[in-house]
Amino acid sequence: MTDHAPFSEPDLSGAAAIARGVARYYWQAGWSCLREVSLPNGRRADLVALSRRGEIAIVEVKSGLADFQSDAKWGDYLEFCDVFDFAVDAAFPLGRLPQDVGVLIADAYGAARHLTGPRVALSPARRKAMVQRLARTAADRLMVLADPDFVPEHGL
Amino acid sequence: MTDHAPFSEPDLSGAAAIARGVARYYWQAGWSCLREVSLPNGRRADLVALSRRGEIAIVEVKSGLADFQSDAKWGDYLEFCDVFDFAVDAAFPLGRLPQDVGVLIADAYGAARHLTGPRVALSPARRKAMVQRLARTAADRLMVLADPDFVPEHGL
Repeated sequence: MTDHAPFSEPDLSGAAAIARGVARYYWQAGWSCLREVSLPNGRRADLVALSRRGEIAIVEVKSGLADFQSDAKWGDYLEFCDVFDFAVDAAFPLGRLPQDVGVLIADAYGAARHLTGPRVALSPARRKAMVQRLARTAADRLMVLADPDFVPEHGL
Repeated sequence: MTDHAPFSEPDLSGAAAIARGVARYYWQAGWSCLREVSLPNGRRADLVALSRRGEIAIVEVKSGLADFQSDAKWGDYLEFCDVFDFAVDAAFPLGRLPQDVGVLIADAYGAARHLTGPRVALSPARRKAMVQRLARTAADRLMVLADPDFVPEHGL
């Protein structure tokens, strides 16, 4: 992915690499990050970040132009976050992305902001539901890791 | 711990076994469970459970009478949950526990309720802060697992 990638990390390419870099970017800014979060509308956000102040960012990773062009429904994420970013790698043709949302340029080791999108505050009820969703999703994943022989699902 | 413990699980004794059984108990009731949660007052709850409706339970595991008697500060947990339980194993002298909080009797495979404590609702602000704490604590643990080479701490 980058010329300083250690040889011992074989799977750091494409979307996985971008997502890791974005998580590091938000983490360094003090946000907690959770990957692959199911939303009430049936969509699955690539990454959701939660700030100390309870702000919620959703980041949609696009591994290339085809990946972006095949997703006509990214607007469905906007109602579940205060800020929305696309995250792409340095080879992505940035002019093809919407210019009115956030854009991060990432590799496996971090990210840099190319565009800052608007901050549209969630309603208190929606924010409360999203933070609880993050808590239950993350706790349930840890439970499965800690006790893999047990029932894997109880719904959110 | 119990006569049906598989031989392949060597560390299921004492507090760890009780905590696993309690997590299974709450999980089966639809709650999400997180172990070892730091609270704003500096205490560390053995297990915090979060229901679909946003209710918060704190469970304090006591591996034996000495463990209980050495903890004069368990009352510090009450202000951070709607319901509080002690969890002990079947050998614990139950009469030595307070009779006005919840008590679960657990082994590594589950738990049964011996006493139901009062439900004292958290204030909305305290509940919001606790759910956010659970979300950030759990997400951060998953982040460390997914990206162990990265900075391990950014605070809650």
